[in-house]
Amino acid sequence: MRLSILALSLVCAFPVLRADEGMWTFDNVPTKKIQAKYGFEPDAAWLKRLQLATLRFPGGTGAFVSPEGLVITNHHVGRGAIAQVSSAKVDYIKDGFTAATREQEIKVPGLDLMMLVASENVTARVNGAVKAGTPEKDALKARQNELSTIKTEQEKATGLTCESVVLYQGGEYWIYQYKKFSDVRLVAAPELQVASFGGDADNYTYPRWNLDFALFRVYENGQPYQPKAYLPFASKDLRMGDLTLISGHPGTTSRKETLAQMLFAKEVYIPFRLRSMERQKAALLTFAATSEEARRISADAIYGIDNGHKRFSGQLAGLMKPQSLVQVRERELALQAAVAQDPQLKERAGQSWDRVAQAVERQKALLQEYFCIDARGSALLGHALTLVRLADEEAKPSDQRLSEFTEGNLKATKGRLTNPRPIQKPLDAARLAAGLREALDLLGKDHPFVKAMLDGKSPEEVAKAAVEGTQLHDPAFRKQVMEGAKITDPMLALARKLDPLQRAIRKQWEEQVQSVLSEHGGRIADARFKAFGKSQYPDATFTLRLSYGPVATYDTGSATKAQPFTTFLGLFDRHLGWGGNAAAAEEGAWTLPQRWLDRKDRLDLATPFNFIYACDTVGGNSGSPVVNKAGEFVGINFDSVYEGQGGYYVYDDATKRAVAADARAILETLRKIMDAPHLVKELGAK
Amino acid sequence: MRLSILALSLVCAFPVLRADEGMWTFDNVPTKKIQAKYGFEPDAAWLKRLQLATLRFPGGTGAFVSPEGLVITNHHVGRGAIAQVSSAKVDYIKDGFTAATREQEIKVPGLDLMMLVASENVTARVNGAVKAGTPEKDALKARQNELSTIKTEQEKATGLTCESVVLYQGGEYWIYQYKKFSDVRLVAAPELQVASFGGDADNYTYPRWNLDFALFRVYENGQPYQPKAYLPFASKDLRMGDLTLISGHPGTTSRKETLAQMLFAKEVYIPFRLRSMERQKAALLTFAATSEEARRISADAIYGIDNGHKRFSGQLAGLMKPQSLVQVRERELALQAAVAQDPQLKERAGQSWDRVAQAVERQKALLQEYFCIDARGSALLGHALTLVRLADEEAKPSDQRLSEFTEGNLKATKGRLTNPRPIQKPLDAARLAAGLREALDLLGKDHPFVKAMLDGKSPEEVAKAAVEGTQLHDPAFRKQVMEGAKITDPMLALARKLDPLQRAIRKQWEEQVQSVLSEHGGRIADARFKAFGKSQYPDATFTLRLSYGPVATYDTGSATKAQPFTTFLGLFDRHLGWGGNAAAAEEGAWTLPQRWLDRKDRLDLATPFNFIYACDTVGGNSGSPVVNKAGEFVGINFDSVYEGQGGYYVYDDATKRAVAADARAILETLRKIMDAPHLVKELGAK
Repeated sequence: MRLSILALSLVCAFPVLRADEGMWTFDNVPTKKIQAKYGFEPDAAWLKRLQLATLRFPGGTGAFVSPEGLVITNHHVGRGAIAQVSSAKVDYIKDGFTAATREQEIKVPGLDLMMLVASENVTARVNGAVKAGTPEKDALKARQNELSTIKTEQEKATGLTCESVVLYQGGEYWIYQYKKFSDVRLVAAPELQVASFGGDADNYTYPRWNLDFALFRVYENGQPYQPKAYLPFASKDLRMGDLTLISGHPGTTSRKETLAQMLFAKEVYIPFRLRSMERQKAALLTFAATSEEARRISADAIYGIDNGHKRFSGQLAGLMKPQSLVQVRERELALQAAVAQDPQLKERAGQSWDRVAQAVERQKALLQEYFCIDARGSALLGHALTLVRLADEEAKPSDQRLSEFTEGNLKATKGRLTNPRPIQKPLDAARLAAGLREALDLLGKDHPFVKAMLDGKSPEEVAKAAVEGTQLHDPAFRKQVMEGAKITDPMLALARKLDPLQRAIRKQWEEQVQSVLSEHGGRIADARFKAFGKSQYPDATFTLRLSYGPVATYDTGSATKAQPFTTFLGLFDRHLGWGGNAAAAEEGAWTLPQRWLDRKDRLDLATPFNFIYACDTVGGNSGSPVVNKAGEFVGINFDSVYEGQGGYYVYDDATKRAVAADARAILETLRKIMDAPHLVKELGAK
Repeated sequence: MRLSILALSLVCAFPVLRADEGMWTFDNVPTKKIQAKYGFEPDAAWLKRLQLATLRFPGGTGAFVSPEGLVITNHHVGRGAIAQVSSAKVDYIKDGFTAATREQEIKVPGLDLMMLVASENVTARVNGAVKAGTPEKDALKARQNELSTIKTEQEKATGLTCESVVLYQGGEYWIYQYKKFSDVRLVAAPELQVASFGGDADNYTYPRWNLDFALFRVYENGQPYQPKAYLPFASKDLRMGDLTLISGHPGTTSRKETLAQMLFAKEVYIPFRLRSMERQKAALLTFAATSEEARRISADAIYGIDNGHKRFSGQLAGLMKPQSLVQVRERELALQAAVAQDPQLKERAGQSWDRVAQAVERQKALLQEYFCIDARGSALLGHALTLVRLADEEAKPSDQRLSEFTEGNLKATKGRLTNPRPIQKPLDAARLAAGLREALDLLGKDHPFVKAMLDGKSPEEVAKAAVEGTQLHDPAFRKQVMEGAKITDPMLALARKLDPLQRAIRKQWEEQVQSVLSEHGGRIADARFKAFGKSQYPDATFTLRLSYGPVATYDTGSATKAQPFTTFLGLFDRHLGWGGNAAAAEEGAWTLPQRWLDRKDRLDLATPFNFIYACDTVGGNSGSPVVNKAGEFVGINFDSVYEGQGGYYVYDDATKRAVAADARAILETLRKIMDAPHLVKELGAK
């Protein structure tokens, strides 16, 4: 109740943002607002320390939590790495892992972590690269090239890994400079069954009992890395109502899109993607049923589809709330009114909503082809396509290349080609077959892409032949091809057919959709800047952000009111309530490892396990550290609730809640279950 | 998954009923169907034993559970009785109660329990009382009179309490014969805070932790009554998937209504009632805020409104599901097709849907007046109205009286007048004032009812004067008036103004709405009989029914998949998750009595607490015993989930789940918390 009243008063003070909405860049944290509401103003040193303690994982976030380079992230962020260092004999996913000594810590080849060291706003220079009167499609290219050039310059100057970052739909351009860590070792992880207790059924729900964490250690020169900043485990108990702050890399949001774009998402795009996922899942379930090995190697992909399906459904449910698009419409009308009153803005952005709407019409028309004409979820065909293009692209001037081959991006692209992460051939074949069949069904047998790829055969035949015959699963082989070896390979042959067709649809998409949305989205963003300045935050871009909000329940509509914390008591309640390991109900979603049952009496069952808090997050915030005012680690973010998924498009303070595993549960488990008192000690906990 | 497949196959075999739908009369339990699905066929003796062990409470159900007359029901069904024997000094609602000896058991004056001994189908005789060609409004009256006559005859013949029962919307008429128990004593009850843990927030939700039970004992001639049948506590653990059966008195459902009636409910009636409840609640909250005493005496009424509001919202949500009314429409079309093909049915029921639709139009027109022109929730004005009418009505022939004064009903009506249950004057004044204000707002100041009742004063003044000045709160005073004493009383004066106005609107309602719905609802029901026989069950009528179904989870739409059982572990998880007694979050909804915290370590926390099961229930099933195939008591029904509330109109097997307190939790609590090993022994548990 208190929260709603607060929300109401904030709505009056800040007409655009609601409650604690916002994924703020570290250069623009609303510290005064935090101070006004929570009596705490994070200063520059506080923020810098949190920034340097935060790490980017592939697809997620993590943080230094000890002076000796110990890094925490989600189990589900580290899962690929844990699987990679497992084998047929030792299954650390299933059984968990604890390195009793530094020597037992296991190096994960190919796992790179990134620390944001510095960042520079290069907007003026990027915009300066577009000459007055340049057509839109060329303007996009000009900006991309300029950004790419600056990035290369900075990489040379600093020796750091640099990335170009587009904020506010083109309102700002930045270069972010990262220190990259490439010697990362697995230190400890609980069993999957506890990390992901409840599986897909419980995913995106709350109350929840997931101990979704894993510990890695960063090494440099063979020694544990001593980070400049790390987050000690909290010395004070977190309680309901306490302020939490979270740093991380929210992946993508679309909150600044126009009404036309959101209507497209609601009526066309999301329903289309949901159907595609249902198709994919059905294909993978069929594959999984073929053998125990097939089940094992496809489990992660199936979980990924389930996860995406629930996320998209939640987004759709959010867009379908009556107030959502009304709010978007009102915001848009307010901005359009401001634009209409200012001759300069009107000249520049007055037509932009119409132009965006036209691009959306093109998006509708091209969607199926743009979506289908690609590597169809096959990692092998993806590698093949890159290899087929590499020589041609490198031969061109950088500004005429496909974006992933420009000077700025080439290194990362080549890095992906030689990444030693293993590829499961049977799974890749199943995905490719399913993807080609989808293309056949959607585009029809006479579509040039379908004709070229299938050449009269069935999708399954084509996929089988290409996957079985290729050697591209071998990183050394890919390196050979990359370095120019002339080799005949069926997957490369398939990629040669795909190449021109994908270039063509991509060109249409970039010219008719992407460049228009970029240009006019940018103009609208510019106008929004003029009207509101940086009181707004940019849409998520998988770059470092800070969000904040209290530990708080939320409005579930009709269901049980969610308690802010869960405890170990509830873990066993839910386990037993489903009949325990004996019943193994719903494919064993709520079973527990034997070790947990054997050691249950050691545990203080009243220890907090998970909690919900009103921080504004989105996918990519997985593994984000949650800290208190003292900058201490109180938990690790791993999910957000279904009811709040609409926040991808429209923030709703009544339902937007993130879910974290409590630091106290991690310590209790390391101590009592995982035989890791040495890690508890290193984490500085009492 | 298994459940859905079963449901599908049943849909094919029985085109009208889905899964375990049905609240079956004991003369028509689908034993063959139960046998086919669960391999267990309850025989006549099994059913008779369950029937005789089941008791009707005011507004709910209970059951004999020991050979010495121990009766179990819900705490919320017995709450009025527990409050009645409490006082300013001892608050058994708050602190719970355990009689250590028989002598300590506390008699509850005015609490009558009813046991259904026998029942007789009198349809032929009732229908025979309507001469051919009788107008509809007279036909209703003729049937009512004949039923009333038969009831009186049977009461004289048997010495039992008889009630007339209309089943299948007039398809069948019955007389039910009850043995009445009037010496009922409180034996044991847990604290309200445990019986109703989570309060309104958790009401109609699941997972749940409510120990919603109370124990009473029936006495006869000053001795514990020895029932012919009782339900021993189960000797075998209940598990997920096990068949459960439940007997009880489901109050009202409207599943056999026509599409026109359901559309009226969806678009007019339920929204109207929801608004009225919101208004009532606001008034009572204002009253409750005036003093601690006011808060105490209004708590139950406020909870009642919250409960009703959630139930109606759930019904509305159910009607708004796209498939709900489609299903009703399809069923209706199928029946209409059958009627059209049979000349006799066509002659009799061919026009009935249109006639019902016309009556619904009248219902719409009369709704506000019919709803407002009454005693407005005031028990005192209700009594006054009955007293004002009594002499006039008794002077008429029975068949010309208002229905509650006919020979068959007069005794019960007089019994209510002399019932010694206390009436709280300040609360009654608050309700009357709120009710009159609602009438003023809805009907306007110039409406004859409003003018008559208010006479230029405010609703609050009128209510205050009448309530403060009346002596009708005294049962002895009501008895005097009933026996003809000529006394001036302001509430009686108010009732004299209400009397003619209420008679007038009631007459309109009976003639234009009720008699048409009864007549044509009956004709449609007749036609349904012809088409489907008694493969269907009648809508609920607060008479004894049997339902059955397995312990099973349900489809919550998007939220957490519900575990079939909860345990004591979860009770403490939820308590602590809300910050425990220290935080007392949300007005203390999840606090626990100190005794429970002090004695927690005595408990086997893994003991099952609540469970959900797919029995078809509705309000009135509160306190229903849940039994296993052996006819043993496995739990006590106390709620059903929000998602299934639409079952009031349309059954949905994916969401219709009842919630029970597990017998094992009751025993564990009696043993470890409530100092009642003697009761555990009497219940026959190990």
